[in-house]
Amino acid sequence: MCRWMAWSGQPMLMDEFLFKTKHGLVDQSLHSRMGAETTNGDGFGVGWYGAGDGPAYYHSISPAWGDENLRELAAHVETRLFLAHVRATSGTAVQQTNCHPFRHGRWLFVHNGVLRGFHLMRRDLMLAVDPALYPLIEGTTDSEVLFFLAVTLGLEDDPPGAVARAIGLVEDVGRRHGVEYPFQGTIATTDGERLWAFRYASDGKARSLYFSTSYETLKMLYPDDPRLDDFDEETRVVVSEPLGDLVGVWNPVPEASWGVVQPGPDELSTFRPAPPVAA
Amino acid sequence: MCRWMAWSGQPMLMDEFLFKTKHGLVDQSLHSRMGAETTNGDGFGVGWYGAGDGPAYYHSISPAWGDENLRELAAHVETRLFLAHVRATSGTAVQQTNCHPFRHGRWLFVHNGVLRGFHLMRRDLMLAVDPALYPLIEGTTDSEVLFFLAVTLGLEDDPPGAVARAIGLVEDVGRRHGVEYPFQGTIATTDGERLWAFRYASDGKARSLYFSTSYETLKMLYPDDPRLDDFDEETRVVVSEPLGDLVGVWNPVPEASWGVVQPGPDELSTFRPAPPVAA
Amino acid sequence: MCRWMAWSGQPMLMDEFLFKTKHGLVDQSLHSRMGAETTNGDGFGVGWYGAGDGPAYYHSISPAWGDENLRELAAHVETRLFLAHVRATSGTAVQQTNCHPFRHGRWLFVHNGVLRGFHLMRRDLMLAVDPALYPLIEGTTDSEVLFFLAVTLGLEDDPPGAVARAIGLVEDVGRRHGVEYPFQGTIATTDGERLWAFRYASDGKARSLYFSTSYETLKMLYPDDPRLDDFDEETRVVVSEPLGDLVGVWNPVPEASWGVVQPGPDELSTFRPAPPVAA
Amino acid sequence: MCRWMAWSGQPMLMDEFLFKTKHGLVDQSLHSRMGAETTNGDGFGVGWYGAGDGPAYYHSISPAWGDENLRELAAHVETRLFLAHVRATSGTAVQQTNCHPFRHGRWLFVHNGVLRGFHLMRRDLMLAVDPALYPLIEGTTDSEVLFFLAVTLGLEDDPPGAVARAIGLVEDVGRRHGVEYPFQGTIATTDGERLWAFRYASDGKARSLYFSTSYETLKMLYPDDPRLDDFDEETRVVVSEPLGDLVGVWNPVPEASWGVVQPGPDELSTFRPAPPVAA
Repeated sequence: MCRWMAWSGQPMLMDEFLFKTKHGLVDQSLHSRMGAETTNGDGFGVGWYGAGDGPAYYHSISPAWGDENLRELAAHVETRLFLAHVRATSGTAVQQTNCHPFRHGRWLFVHNGVLRGFHLMRRDLMLAVDPALYPLIEGTTDSEVLFFLAVTLGLEDDPPGAVARAIGLVEDVGRRHGVEYPFQGTIATTDGERLWAFRYASDGKARSLYFSTSYETLKMLYPDDPRLDDFDEETRVVVSEPLGDLVGVWNPVPEASWGVVQPGPDELSTFRPAPPVAA
Repeated sequence: MCRWMAWSGQPMLMDEFLFKTKHGLVDQSLHSRMGAETTNGDGFGVGWYGAGDGPAYYHSISPAWGDENLRELAAHVETRLFLAHVRATSGTAVQQTNCHPFRHGRWLFVHNGVLRGFHLMRRDLMLAVDPALYPLIEGTTDSEVLFFLAVTLGLEDDPPGAVARAIGLVEDVGRRHGVEYPFQGTIATTDGERLWAFRYASDGKARSLYFSTSYETLKMLYPDDPRLDDFDEETRVVVSEPLGDLVGVWNPVPEASWGVVQPGPDELSTFRPAPPVAA
Repeated sequence: MCRWMAWSGQPMLMDEFLFKTKHGLVDQSLHSRMGAETTNGDGFGVGWYGAGDGPAYYHSISPAWGDENLRELAAHVETRLFLAHVRATSGTAVQQTNCHPFRHGRWLFVHNGVLRGFHLMRRDLMLAVDPALYPLIEGTTDSEVLFFLAVTLGLEDDPPGAVARAIGLVEDVGRRHGVEYPFQGTIATTDGERLWAFRYASDGKARSLYFSTSYETLKMLYPDDPRLDDFDEETRVVVSEPLGDLVGVWNPVPEASWGVVQPGPDELSTFRPAPPVAA
Repeated sequence: MCRWMAWSGQPMLMDEFLFKTKHGLVDQSLHSRMGAETTNGDGFGVGWYGAGDGPAYYHSISPAWGDENLRELAAHVETRLFLAHVRATSGTAVQQTNCHPFRHGRWLFVHNGVLRGFHLMRRDLMLAVDPALYPLIEGTTDSEVLFFLAVTLGLEDDPPGAVARAIGLVEDVGRRHGVEYPFQGTIATTDGERLWAFRYASDGKARSLYFSTSYETLKMLYPDDPRLDDFDEETRVVVSEPLGDLVGVWNPVPEASWGVVQPGPDELSTFRPAPPVAA
């Protein structure tokens, strides 16, 4: 059920991480090692910040491994912050409007995981979306509804709080429909300046999530590795499963956590869903 | 905003009407004469009854004129009842789940026209869909919501009544949102045995709709035309705009009418939307 | 590098073998057990004989496992002879014109395998195609060139001889370009009446190929299995790798063999490429 | 049979010309005024120079007017030189490998027009392509073969001479196959530094071609137009048919001409095909 990665750092061509790195995200679309499925071939998307207003995206229903346009874009778009996502559908249609990242204003959002029993709770969740945002929902995935719930519940002002309220609502609605463990997954969202990542599952067994260790640590670990010359101290990669083969580069994000990559020190905290307060 | 056709009669290859007839439906996808747009290139669909359970469909986001698979199917699928539809989007995404005909059980449904101000009323209309049907809505068009409203309001038992109630609801919701003339269009729906067609617009200026005259009339008009040897007396074609070049073949369906093609005599009646009764 | 299957027998819906059978061909597109690759997600095709003139095909660049139209067709097209193929490209573009089966007149053709060093020999092989057939080559695969070489060399009159001459030519041209083992693979071709299958590799290690045992054997092996009631004595399935779970159903085709499924007794013979005779 | 445009000047977002300009290229895909067809909906492509090595392209088989990814790219890719092309096929398949611009090394190439009787001369023309380039031909259009003939005949060293020799060869081969007027069209090609454009037809009636007048002229004509503040004196646009509504902006390129847009003064000369010299 999907793999994703996020890059924040100095401007880089996207293909460095999508194609060139050993076990990069495109290789994970064909041979995921840690995902729920080996194959993530039901479309993909990349979103980036660069020229023009707000973030851009490219969504495709082809498998990432065979998409010629993705190779072109990855080799020719330079960006200091991007999200990429390869999809394995849990049942909803393979169509561009169901590809991540989803976008609202300056915000991008990717999700790996599932809202269990989504067909049971879809109507209730859609009703909980701000009516002004409702017409902006273009696809039919659980992930897009989750995103617009988070926007409804304050994503732009307080991302960790809004995601906690959105997942709390999903758990509440799911349980009312008899779903024991409604949420599963990892999330990344960004406004182009800061990048928030979340790992959580209602049953305590969330999909894997890793972040790269700090540049200073890397440089001490691998003083002679020329690949690290391209990085600076604000560089950070967050991934569903490790890229490449440098031992020690990747730190697992603990269960039930969220973190933020930002100018200056990053942060890592405990994540706890915030159920809706009864009226 | 779309063109469609319906065939009911003895088994025929679909390409007779889609490709071979002069100004057939595929030609209309490129050169519509009477539609709101000349080009209907935003995907298409065909639905037919034949082998296997229930109706089949083929939906594509390619323009009909260039779709190689459509040529193949049309030349090799024989059917006694089919609907075909070429789309010109009024804004919603070009994706297979937005292609007509829509299907529920044994029913197929096509629509040419628009629910004006659909973004304003989408949420209210979705709420009016039977919650048990809600998860079956796969696309984002006004037409699909209209279809599931009709199913909610009794399509399977009373097609003319259900469509009248669905359009009545659309007009009611639209007007509450300040839309003066909420509905515009023509509709065909079938259960594989009978075929209902509707022509109606809130402002009294509906899209064009024609049906073929009876076989007996045709035979009298054109006693020597060998093309008519392929037809029998139960054969009927309903179209957004005339196919071919036989003068006298086509009867316009009057404004605000519905008709049914069925074994035995067909019927044509006045159509009047049935607004919801206040609770 | 691809998986395929062929059915010849009483009229059946295609989905019996593509979707419903355990480890059917669509499952093999995602989880092949015996292929060179696990994933065969670079498009697919089906070709069948039924209504209309000559064989029909449906080609798609989507993975077979996610193609909604394939589900529809498979569940609604009934045929007594069809070929189906899921593709894993060895480098050429993922596009409909590169999807199998290829067609010429009444003939269909599928290939699982590779012409090694095809980029080296493509020009020479294209030159060897009958100039009258040359404009009919629409794609860029090695398999399509092989098919048109076989047509050039007499496929319509002597299929085993023509395939032997075509592969002999490939080996000759390949070796002149320094390729030691130019051909690898299995082939099926049919005129709608008889079905020929081939297994051969220049290095003696061809891809797997199986055929179903005779109906009488099956009935003796499984006297109480109701699935066999659907079959008659002329029924035969040929597959890259076994479908389903009935032990004893499948016979491996030996290395360097060809066989023909036809009315009356089928045949199985040794295959030997026929190199071109020097002028 | 296609429309194209080329931009050379200061860095601009592509959507300025593709979407924002009145009667921009995407509008021409739906409503061409001067083309052989009104609709150019059989795929499109853009190629540009920017970050990364060599030119990038984006090819799509969707109509340009409905392609969401094109809107995204156009609004977020900034470039000082790009080519864009909307396609109306003259018969070859709608597939990405048939979309312009074609690319070889640093070179891009677009063509609007046709090699008449291409199916008759395809084999001979393919044989005339340098065998080392032959495997690089990925599609099946006349235009791509013309491009690789030009590369074979010296495009990288002498673009006007190479195009003259390529068209001379096409005319020679065509006439030997009984085609009276084998070539028709306009061409643009660029190495990222200079941009060459050609207008020529064997029968003297070539497709239209226009270039923007010099910035200085524009500024004198429209001293108060703020749009011109974005332009500098090296800015030049070349188009199949005029964009926008500024009278006096566009100069027709005369029949049988070629021109080059380059740093310093541009040039415009007579074009004359160079037939092959008999050995």
